[in-house]
Amino acid sequence: MHIQLLNDRDIEFLLYEVYDVERLLTRPRYQDHSRETFDSSLETAKKIAQKYFANHYAKGDAHQPTFDGKKVSLVEETQMAWDAVADAGFLAADCSFEEGGMQLPDMIIRLANAYFYAANAATAGYSLLCVGAAHLIQEFGSDEQRLHFLPHMRNGRFTGTMALTEPGQGSSLQDISTKAILTSDGTYRLFGQKMYISGGDHEMTENIIHMVLAKTVCPKSEREGISLFICPKHLVDENGEILQPNDVALVGLLHKMGFRNATSTVLNFGEKEGAKGYLIGELNQGLSYMFQMMNEARIAVGMFAATLGYQGFNYSLAYAKQRKQGRKSSSGPKARAPEQVEIIQHADVRRMLLMQKSYVEAGLAMTCYASALYEDSKTGETQESRDTALMVLDLITPVVKSWPAKYGLEANDLAIQVLGGAGYIQDHPVEQYYRDNRLNPIHEGTEGIQAIDLLGRKVVANEGKALEYLLELINQDATRAKEYDMTDRLGDKLLDAVNDVREVTYLLLGVIAEDRERGLANATIYLDFFGRVFASWIWLQQAEKAILGLSTSSGEGVSHDFYMGKLQAAKFYINWELPKIKQHRDVLVGVYPEPLDMKAQWF
Amino acid sequence: MHIQLLNDRDIEFLLYEVYDVERLLTRPRYQDHSRETFDSSLETAKKIAQKYFANHYAKGDAHQPTFDGKKVSLVEETQMAWDAVADAGFLAADCSFEEGGMQLPDMIIRLANAYFYAANAATAGYSLLCVGAAHLIQEFGSDEQRLHFLPHMRNGRFTGTMALTEPGQGSSLQDISTKAILTSDGTYRLFGQKMYISGGDHEMTENIIHMVLAKTVCPKSEREGISLFICPKHLVDENGEILQPNDVALVGLLHKMGFRNATSTVLNFGEKEGAKGYLIGELNQGLSYMFQMMNEARIAVGMFAATLGYQGFNYSLAYAKQRKQGRKSSSGPKARAPEQVEIIQHADVRRMLLMQKSYVEAGLAMTCYASALYEDSKTGETQESRDTALMVLDLITPVVKSWPAKYGLEANDLAIQVLGGAGYIQDHPVEQYYRDNRLNPIHEGTEGIQAIDLLGRKVVANEGKALEYLLELINQDATRAKEYDMTDRLGDKLLDAVNDVREVTYLLLGVIAEDRERGLANATIYLDFFGRVFASWIWLQQAEKAILGLSTSSGEGVSHDFYMGKLQAAKFYINWELPKIKQHRDVLVGVYPEPLDMKAQWF
Repeated sequence: MHIQLLNDRDIEFLLYEVYDVERLLTRPRYQDHSRETFDSSLETAKKIAQKYFANHYAKGDAHQPTFDGKKVSLVEETQMAWDAVADAGFLAADCSFEEGGMQLPDMIIRLANAYFYAANAATAGYSLLCVGAAHLIQEFGSDEQRLHFLPHMRNGRFTGTMALTEPGQGSSLQDISTKAILTSDGTYRLFGQKMYISGGDHEMTENIIHMVLAKTVCPKSEREGISLFICPKHLVDENGEILQPNDVALVGLLHKMGFRNATSTVLNFGEKEGAKGYLIGELNQGLSYMFQMMNEARIAVGMFAATLGYQGFNYSLAYAKQRKQGRKSSSGPKARAPEQVEIIQHADVRRMLLMQKSYVEAGLAMTCYASALYEDSKTGETQESRDTALMVLDLITPVVKSWPAKYGLEANDLAIQVLGGAGYIQDHPVEQYYRDNRLNPIHEGTEGIQAIDLLGRKVVANEGKALEYLLELINQDATRAKEYDMTDRLGDKLLDAVNDVREVTYLLLGVIAEDRERGLANATIYLDFFGRVFASWIWLQQAEKAILGLSTSSGEGVSHDFYMGKLQAAKFYINWELPKIKQHRDVLVGVYPEPLDMKAQWF
Repeated sequence: MHIQLLNDRDIEFLLYEVYDVERLLTRPRYQDHSRETFDSSLETAKKIAQKYFANHYAKGDAHQPTFDGKKVSLVEETQMAWDAVADAGFLAADCSFEEGGMQLPDMIIRLANAYFYAANAATAGYSLLCVGAAHLIQEFGSDEQRLHFLPHMRNGRFTGTMALTEPGQGSSLQDISTKAILTSDGTYRLFGQKMYISGGDHEMTENIIHMVLAKTVCPKSEREGISLFICPKHLVDENGEILQPNDVALVGLLHKMGFRNATSTVLNFGEKEGAKGYLIGELNQGLSYMFQMMNEARIAVGMFAATLGYQGFNYSLAYAKQRKQGRKSSSGPKARAPEQVEIIQHADVRRMLLMQKSYVEAGLAMTCYASALYEDSKTGETQESRDTALMVLDLITPVVKSWPAKYGLEANDLAIQVLGGAGYIQDHPVEQYYRDNRLNPIHEGTEGIQAIDLLGRKVVANEGKALEYLLELINQDATRAKEYDMTDRLGDKLLDAVNDVREVTYLLLGVIAEDRERGLANATIYLDFFGRVFASWIWLQQAEKAILGLSTSSGEGVSHDFYMGKLQAAKFYINWELPKIKQHRDVLVGVYPEPLDMKAQWF
């Protein structure tokens, strides 16, 4: 069964009807672009995704990377996918024309990547990490570092990684133990072990540029600050030519439930004389640099999750339209209609499909919205607009990372259920989507960590200014909805929800001020509470555009059907999923104490 | 990390404090038994599970069954596990002493099997299916059939299967196309293909006895009824000696996401002259026989799911108690406590553990309750008590199958999340529990099918008598709880929920009477609605026993901690999970139409 990658009509809707990417064309950076250049970039990405990524989605899972003690082997199609992305210029899509880049807006780049994710999430990981590492060097590195490394990371000769996590500390980066010792030539020697490093070793490229967090040993100061280092697998000269291996050794590959074609590695830095590393920016600023890049990576995780969910939705929808089984329940338990029907004719199957649709389309949309904010924070016309965009982006990032992760996975669970027994066997891809997607609620900060970030940091920042700003945006849209949506009262429901958010948040901030542990104990519930309101807003925006589209469409045909589907999904989400915040509200307002009071020995 | 199988203290609690299995000792069938013989049977099962099942849980997953065109190969430990179960008499645990059995009550047998499930669910599938097939022959077969097959299925020489599903019809058994043609010697020849047949081929036993549903071709009648046949892999003489292969061919093995060491097969019956089959009982009664056995299989699926959930809980609990990471949030964002803490000290980790506890212990308990009803339906003192037990069992069976399947899986998801990145790699078993458990919401009737069974059949049976009986039981317990539970008002919440169930059910039955499709459209929501109330009752019963236990325990120590944990889990479930029925109630009472109204072309 051939399954489309994402949905071109939905992407067109997001770009040109909901988030109006054409407004960027008036900005100097994008004045040479047009809707045509945007669309042609996406078309190129889609073709590459279909030809070079989709072809080994199952194969890369069945034949996971191996390590023979010397070299790592991947299925050979991975190399071809890497080359195709590099050759088409997608590793430098955000770079200026002068740098040989495509100078594309963030949303176009992200949606181009979304095709790669949808076709083969694991293989797409290599380019994502490379671009992320390159951004760190671009943003915080010296001119010399940029010159030495970036051209090769942008043309596909080198890949990149993020080497943060260690076996001993997991999410708690403050506690890393990798050490960096300054040498007389101004470079450092790194010693330590890193774990769960994606793309940490392979033979696809001449070199791998690890971005490593390590603690500098500073005799002058008592404080062991965390700094960020460039630590290449092979040392290079100023032209990027390989000189000799650095002291970075692959200990072994980790075998995962999914995402298997992306190597996950344990790396030893400094088994011998120490791995040579180049300090990025200033000493002791490593965490701050990483956190500034986190928005980018977290939006990407949300998009990974949304696209995996999307593919499961696409597949189970196509399956439900062609698989015949059972009869309409309207014919009664005894009465028998003459023919079996396609399972999409069963209301419960449509419920499972509608639920998937409401999760995956909102997931993709909210990552696009975050991308629009990211864009505005960089290229917005005024300083004020850039600051405002960054402020809102900071607030919603934990939601944009974790909501698609949670509900994209839930969508994949429903896709399996639509297929039934067929969904559980490896003849169909839905079980692999489910396994792949299970990573997303974990990496780049688990759900619990996002929750504490949201409630413990983001909503309190600037005296709650970002939250108030966002709630006001929602309020405006919901108020307007009362006019165009006369029957379903979706706007009223969202207005009510905004009040709930305000009430719950200020109450909890009071609790946190008095007792931080108690106030944050149910933070994960708050994250879902907030996420449902945010996702409802995302759906209300789409409902408004759908109603607009319906008013100008002919009352039948593909376009009409598309808008009707959007409207129905918005109704479904706001009527079925948003009201679940009432129970969350009770738990949060009551500061329900059961987990907090539970003692380890009672388990 | 060595992980215990289930929890002996919890099993003792269920057997002797909650469901009082000792009351059975007064029944003639069990008069030679005692608490000691029950416990020693369970102890034996646990030892076998530890020694012969747990040893190849990961191995059987990594090396899934293979078929070389002639024979199926399994990891060799599977044979040893099969032999151990057979040698210890567990294949005949329910048989009378005269038949060489152990004459044990159902709950003891099920809990003995629960140890096998917990240690290695896939391998445990072989004995489960064999016993199920034997029950069908015992219940509906002729004396001759019993004599020919049962001794060998009970001593381990033969295994058994259930061959119902076909590629073309899936869950819709009425539409099977396998044909059975009567021959002159009174036997039948079967022609057709069966799919997803677990244990359908292997070399562990001399023979495999397939229980096959097929349509008889009856020239005398227009109606093609469905009948049940014994169809062995090898034909045997009256002493069970193998004569020659029957016309049953393995087409291939299906490769699954989990449950891998249980072969899942596609079987061809009658590629040549037809597979010889022996009619069980009467013509056209096949479905009715199967449905009578369904209660048994569905309770088993619930138990599989609960035990897989249980193991994930055990593992993540042990991990959380020893893994150090991060600091208490009470120390503030800047302040730093001197030491990292075990992650169980983080409230959000305790929430994930408490949630798991509330799911898996209730899952196991509700399967035990169903088992108690099954027992009473067979050996209850009076006809009335037997009828009542069967009536309630029929009602709750869809819930006892699907609730642990849904929430056992959710518990496994939480177990992964507790471990974080470690939960996603195959060094820890939690990802395998998750993959294995994903089967349980599918087989033996998907969630949607259980939902329609509950709302469309079970609650309306006997004019709702079973439902009213159950609600009255819940009412009594909840009313009593108002006395002993003075502070938490758990009883009040359950009383309120009972009213909701009554209101929603009668309203929906009215809708169904008018428009069956509309009335059943949201049946899956009803199933979860009902399941939450039922699970809350299960927890309330345990809370009552825990309060009783606390009143006699010393105020500290292991026993005190156990009861405190039970009480806390009950509070958690009833305060956090039960109230979610309010949103379900709105959807059901409003007969929310979004899925029903959604059109295929709108997706």
